[in-house]
Amino acid sequence: MTRSIAWQDGAIEAVDQCALPHEYRTLRLSTVDEVIDAIQRLAIRGAPAIGVAGALAVALSARAHTRDGVCDEIAVRTEARRIADARPTAVNLSWAVRRVVDKLGGGADAVLAEAVAILVEDEERNRAAAGEAAKLVRRLCGPEPLRLLTHCNTGRLATVAWGTALGAIRLLAGEGHVTEVLFGETRPLLQGARLTAWELAEAGIPHRMLVDSAGPAALAAGMVDCVLVGADRVCANGDVANKIGTYSLALAAARAGVPFVVVAPESTLDTTLRSGADIVIEERAPAEVTAFGGVEVAPPGTGVFNPAFDVTPAELVTAVVTESGVFRPTGTAEERAS
Amino acid sequence: MTRSIAWQDGAIEAVDQCALPHEYRTLRLSTVDEVIDAIQRLAIRGAPAIGVAGALAVALSARAHTRDGVCDEIAVRTEARRIADARPTAVNLSWAVRRVVDKLGGGADAVLAEAVAILVEDEERNRAAAGEAAKLVRRLCGPEPLRLLTHCNTGRLATVAWGTALGAIRLLAGEGHVTEVLFGETRPLLQGARLTAWELAEAGIPHRMLVDSAGPAALAAGMVDCVLVGADRVCANGDVANKIGTYSLALAAARAGVPFVVVAPESTLDTTLRSGADIVIEERAPAEVTAFGGVEVAPPGTGVFNPAFDVTPAELVTAVVTESGVFRPTGTAEERAS
Repeated sequence: MTRSIAWQDGAIEAVDQCALPHEYRTLRLSTVDEVIDAIQRLAIRGAPAIGVAGALAVALSARAHTRDGVCDEIAVRTEARRIADARPTAVNLSWAVRRVVDKLGGGADAVLAEAVAILVEDEERNRAAAGEAAKLVRRLCGPEPLRLLTHCNTGRLATVAWGTALGAIRLLAGEGHVTEVLFGETRPLLQGARLTAWELAEAGIPHRMLVDSAGPAALAAGMVDCVLVGADRVCANGDVANKIGTYSLALAAARAGVPFVVVAPESTLDTTLRSGADIVIEERAPAEVTAFGGVEVAPPGTGVFNPAFDVTPAELVTAVVTESGVFRPTGTAEERAS
Repeated sequence: MTRSIAWQDGAIEAVDQCALPHEYRTLRLSTVDEVIDAIQRLAIRGAPAIGVAGALAVALSARAHTRDGVCDEIAVRTEARRIADARPTAVNLSWAVRRVVDKLGGGADAVLAEAVAILVEDEERNRAAAGEAAKLVRRLCGPEPLRLLTHCNTGRLATVAWGTALGAIRLLAGEGHVTEVLFGETRPLLQGARLTAWELAEAGIPHRMLVDSAGPAALAAGMVDCVLVGADRVCANGDVANKIGTYSLALAAARAGVPFVVVAPESTLDTTLRSGADIVIEERAPAEVTAFGGVEVAPPGTGVFNPAFDVTPAELVTAVVTESGVFRPTGTAEERAS
């Protein structure tokens, strides 16, 4: 499968997620500032993908700050902090940056090697997590054809390849288990409409889009057998931060008795945070909501509260699935890959 | 207060809700087909407003089918059925049409008189319902300044004047009780962004807009003291059909322990339907979702499930408030206007 992010001839090459679905093109990023900009304007997005991009950005920094074989560690650490702070909510970014910064003693080549290792692992781990999740879904839902609901984009674009929740959906569809995938358009930046629709069409999986607020109605109407979403951060108690709108799906799934499964690499777990109350939720610019495609939709000056993520309490989560197996939202592994 | 819909010189004059917020202009509708078109493309929208427009459209029909003082009742009844069927979910439309059709025996003038009576009553009844709701909110929430959450548009545009839920908010704000009104943009047709933002600015009430899926997050974060919404149909058991997205707010309000109050004229009650399962939910065109502000946002051909309304179960509703007082969702009046 084509990777959505790669290290190529001394630079990062990544699918430009802002250009989809109208154009499939690749960005070439050769400076830290270019990577930070791409992450902040969501040209690179998805918790696993921004982790990998952040790690590779540190490698760019280490190479740029190496003279005569000597790496200026202080300069790199300063830039690494800026990279880690590019977006606050997904823990994968700071996790990946920390992991490569720990290799700074070995010089720029060691940093790059670790960043590339994270990239390679990302594909393997997400594919493994998707496999675990697919097995869990079949166990929870039985052999009947499945109608699945997902949110935002958790596919090959949000990761190096394959995807997390959408990776599980891809596996289930490949086995002929999926009749329909419903997904929210994902306001304000329409990752569902622009990216998930595109990936599902690319994969040939039957799908229909909803406005985000129709997901709960679809659950109440019995149109969904299982909800599968990704995560940006999972706390020690099992609370899950994910794209705004996830919480309402979890509420409706719980009421409808429909399993609500979170799929993410283990790097998304943040056991340093006790609960979702401790998660920093990124608030983004009002213009994301008041205008679209250059067209103003609200009166000039309309104020906006624009949180990019919400927190789903652990008790509404059926399971968090990583490459290590199925975790109950208590944070302890109750089942392991068989 | 300026009426958003009126009978003027033999025709219906109504605010063109499709033109807002960019332009405030009035439509002049002198045929049944023009009225049906205006209702179907949401130039006239809001359950009370389409009821009034439907009644006046029957008056247009009766006048058009009167020759030498004799009204062709069969022709009018046929058109009345088309008018009543223009949109299926709001019961006010069929209720108003039935009420004026019952006057057909008195000729076109009797039909017009009844339609105008409905128009005049709409303002009075919604204002009374808003007053009841404002009193209830103060009783439920105490004397502290209030942070309110609403959805879609239930203001003077959705009614002849004043509004239902937004009318109650207007009253509470007039008494200095409101610090902030949060409201969802209301995808797909952005009645919140286009109309509620405009009305709240016009009324000078502090407000901030959210993407619809952020309402539940705001409730969970303790940012809301009370949710106030309108209704398109309230069943005998208290289940409420209202704009898509209402259900998710009710779920989140219940979990957060925040009152969830429905404000509507009594004409919205439909005791012929036992529960929400019997309500016909209008599905609208995919293009409402796949394009945004005239810009295509999803890949060509993306399928869509686009229900215009959802059903909130009675048990999630704190109260339904009409001009007759406060009803518990059981459908029985537990409190009357004092």
